[in-house]
Amino acid sequence: MNELASSPISDTRSLKVALLGCGTVGSAVLRLLSEQADDLAARIGRPVEVAGIAVRRPDHHPDVPQHLLTTDASGLVARDDVDLVVEVIGGIEPARTLILAAFEAGKSVVSANKALLADDGVALHAAAAKFGVDLYYEAAVAGAIPLLRPLRESLAGDQLRRVVGIVNGTTNYILSRMAETGAGFAEALAEATDLGYAEADPTADVDGFDAAAKAAILASLAFHTPVTASDVHREGISSVSATDVARAAEIGCTVKLLAICERVGPTGDDAGSGDSVAVRVHPAMIPTTHPLASVGGAFNAVFVEAEAAGQLMFYGQGAGGQPTASAVLGDLVAVARNRLAGAAGQSSTGYANLAVRPMAETPTRYHVSLDVADKPGVLATVAHAFAEHGVSISTVRQNGHGDAATLVIVTHSAPDAALSATIAALRDMPTVRGVTSVLRVEGLS
Amino acid sequence: MNELASSPISDTRSLKVALLGCGTVGSAVLRLLSEQADDLAARIGRPVEVAGIAVRRPDHHPDVPQHLLTTDASGLVARDDVDLVVEVIGGIEPARTLILAAFEAGKSVVSANKALLADDGVALHAAAAKFGVDLYYEAAVAGAIPLLRPLRESLAGDQLRRVVGIVNGTTNYILSRMAETGAGFAEALAEATDLGYAEADPTADVDGFDAAAKAAILASLAFHTPVTASDVHREGISSVSATDVARAAEIGCTVKLLAICERVGPTGDDAGSGDSVAVRVHPAMIPTTHPLASVGGAFNAVFVEAEAAGQLMFYGQGAGGQPTASAVLGDLVAVARNRLAGAAGQSSTGYANLAVRPMAETPTRYHVSLDVADKPGVLATVAHAFAEHGVSISTVRQNGHGDAATLVIVTHSAPDAALSATIAALRDMPTVRGVTSVLRVEGLS
Repeated sequence: MNELASSPISDTRSLKVALLGCGTVGSAVLRLLSEQADDLAARIGRPVEVAGIAVRRPDHHPDVPQHLLTTDASGLVARDDVDLVVEVIGGIEPARTLILAAFEAGKSVVSANKALLADDGVALHAAAAKFGVDLYYEAAVAGAIPLLRPLRESLAGDQLRRVVGIVNGTTNYILSRMAETGAGFAEALAEATDLGYAEADPTADVDGFDAAAKAAILASLAFHTPVTASDVHREGISSVSATDVARAAEIGCTVKLLAICERVGPTGDDAGSGDSVAVRVHPAMIPTTHPLASVGGAFNAVFVEAEAAGQLMFYGQGAGGQPTASAVLGDLVAVARNRLAGAAGQSSTGYANLAVRPMAETPTRYHVSLDVADKPGVLATVAHAFAEHGVSISTVRQNGHGDAATLVIVTHSAPDAALSATIAALRDMPTVRGVTSVLRVEGLS
Repeated sequence: MNELASSPISDTRSLKVALLGCGTVGSAVLRLLSEQADDLAARIGRPVEVAGIAVRRPDHHPDVPQHLLTTDASGLVARDDVDLVVEVIGGIEPARTLILAAFEAGKSVVSANKALLADDGVALHAAAAKFGVDLYYEAAVAGAIPLLRPLRESLAGDQLRRVVGIVNGTTNYILSRMAETGAGFAEALAEATDLGYAEADPTADVDGFDAAAKAAILASLAFHTPVTASDVHREGISSVSATDVARAAEIGCTVKLLAICERVGPTGDDAGSGDSVAVRVHPAMIPTTHPLASVGGAFNAVFVEAEAAGQLMFYGQGAGGQPTASAVLGDLVAVARNRLAGAAGQSSTGYANLAVRPMAETPTRYHVSLDVADKPGVLATVAHAFAEHGVSISTVRQNGHGDAATLVIVTHSAPDAALSATIAALRDMPTVRGVTSVLRVEGLS
C-alpha cells in the first residue's frame, strides 16, 4: 500500500503534508499554509493540504482543526496518503527516528532542527540520498534569511574562504544593550529575560551552544566537509564585561558573538599537509566599519568571503515563528516541486572532507588590556612575554595615571594556544597588576 | 545525430559547455572552470569541459586555447557533443536567437544577459519550459550576490511586499563621492570615468537603463508577474545636484539611486480592483540608519520586505569579471546537476499576472526645498498648494535669512502625479523664488 510514495502523483490531487510539532513555528507554518494556499498551489502546480499534525498534548492546541491532531507521529509519517513531512519538533529524538522513517517511506523532509542537523547531518544526508528524497533545512540557521541554499547552490562554482555570522539573536541583543547602556552582562541578561528576548534558562544561547550548532551546519555546507557541533570551539558571552565593551569602543570596535568558519592553509609544522577547516564561536571585537558591526538587536547576519565572488552579506530576522515559517515554506515549495518532477534537489556534499583544525592551532588575534606599574622597563618586559611565545604585536597604547599605567595591546595573528599562553604568562608577572580585558579581534586589517 | 542532448549521459564522460562570448566575464568563467575543475567535478558528479568558445574576432583572444575558438556561434550551440550553453555576449541579438536554438536542441542555458531577460524573459522562460530545459541567470542582477535564487526559491513560501535595491555600482560610486566630497554630478562622473568606474559612454548607468532592466527582472521574480524594462519608470542621476545631497544630509538622509519594486494595494478610484505592481528607478533620499544607506562605492545591495520573513538584505559586489563569473558558475553547477538528474530545476512563474501601475498613480513621498520671501502668509500659501493637490505634509522646517527664507518640506505618501503637480504649482507661485531641491524620500517612518 505504499505505492503513492514512489509512483507519480496523479494530476489533480493535493500534495499532503504531515506536520510534526505545533509550537511557535508549527503554528506559523499552519497559518501560512492556509493564508497563502492559492499562491502555494500556483507556485507548486498542485494544492497543498495538511494530512495531520503530530503533537504530544492534543488538548494544548485548541486553535487547530482537532481532527488533524494525533499523538502517533510515526503512524502519521507512515501513512500512505502523506507525501511530504515537515519536522518542527526540535531536539534529537524522536525527530531523528521520524525523519529516517519518512525517508524510508520515500518522503522528502523539511526540518528546522539545528541541533539534529549539527549532530547527525552526515548520516541524515546519506539516508536521504539512499532513498532518493530531499532533506531541506533552511530554517535551521538564521531563521528567515535565505542562506543555506545560496551557500550550497549559488556559490557552488566558487571557493569559500570564510563564513562569519551573527547567528544568535539573544546574545546579540544582550551585547547591543551592553554597548548602548554601559551595563554589565548580568544586568543586560536580566533585561533581555524580562522582555522575552532570553529564555528562563538562557544557557543554550548565552553559552554559545545554539551558535555552535549553526556554525557546524554552515561549515559543512561552505567547505563540503562533515563538521559536527562537537568539532566547534565554543565560548559564550557570560564573561564579557562592561570593561571589554568599553575597551572595544576605544579602539573603534564593537563586541559581537561570532560564529566563524574558515578554510585555513597549512602552517608551521604541518606545512606539507593540505587545507583544513577551523570552526569556532566566541565573542570578538570587530571594527564598527565592518558590515556585521551595525547588525543590532535580535537581527542575524552572515558575512561570506569567497575567492571569486568577494565579500557578501546576508541580513535578516534570525528567529521568531513567522520568519522561521517563511523559510520552512520556501523549502516546502522546493521539495514539493522536486517531488512532482520526480527528482531530488541539489544536496549537500562532503567530498572535500577537510580535517578540522583544533582551536589551539587556529590563527587568531587578541586585544589585551593590562594594568601595570608605571616604571621603566615594564613595557619591555611585557613585550618580551609576547615575543617569547612567538606572538608579534600590532599596536600598543600606553596611558599613565599616577604610579600606574594602562597598556592596550593588539597582536598580529598567531596560533590561539600561543596567545592564551602569553596571557597566562602576563597574569603571573609581578609588574602586571591586572589583566583587565582579553578578547579576540576579527576583521581588523 | 542529436541523441546525446536528450538521452541520459553515460557515467564517465565530461559534461561539455559551449561558451558564447569571451570578454571580461567570459574570460573569468574560463579561468574559474580551469582553476576549480576538481571541485566542480566533485560538486556536479562529472567533469566539466569547454567544448568551444564563440567570439567575433578570434585574433583578439591570444590567451585562450586557440583550437576552442570559433566564429560560428550557432554551429557551436548545435554541436551534438555540447550539453550546456553559457551566454555572456550580452545585448539582444544574436544572444536571443542562440539561446532559443540551444533550448530547441535540448540544452540548458546559463546567461548573464540582463537586457535580454528584462526585454523578453517571458518568451524565453516559455521556450525553456517547452523543451524541458533550464534558463538560469543569477549573474544578470547584482553580480555575485545570490539573489534571484533566494527570491524564486527560498522565499517561494512567502508573500513579498517590496524589493528595493542599489543595483548599479557606477551610479552608487558617483553618489557616494558626491556625499563625501560635496562635488556636483559632473565632477563626480569625471572622477568615476578617470578611475574606470564609469564607461566612456555612461548613459546606460547614469540614466538608469541598467538599473531599470534589473528592476524588471527582480519584479518579475518577486511578484510572479511578467514585467519588462519598458514597464519600469526610469529617472537617472544626472539631475541630482550638490544641493540635493546637502539637503539630504540635513535631514539625516543620503541620496541613492534605487530600483523599487512594490506590490501596491488598490487605492482611491480603483478600490474594487486587486493588487498591482509598481516598478521604478529613481534617485531618492533614504535615512542614514537604513541598511541600504551604508552601501558605498561600487557595492550592490538589495533590501527585501516579505510578509512572514520580515526584512532581509543581500549585499555584495555587483559587477566585475570574477564576481559575475562566480554567479555564472553557481548556475552552471545547478543546471549540470539538473541535466544529470534528468529534470529541469525550479523555474520562474508568472501566474499572478498583476497589473503594472503607472508611475503617476504610484504612492511616493517628496522632499522639497524652497527659497521663499520671508513675509507673513507665505507658509500658508505654500501649504495651501500642497493641500489643493491632496498632498499632506509630514514635516516643515523654516529658516529665515534676511528678507528670504528656506522652507524644507517632507510630504506624506501621495500619488506621484499629485506630488509633481504640486511642484509645478509651487514653481509658478510669485512668493516662491526658487525650488532648490526636489527628491523622493524612501524608508522614512
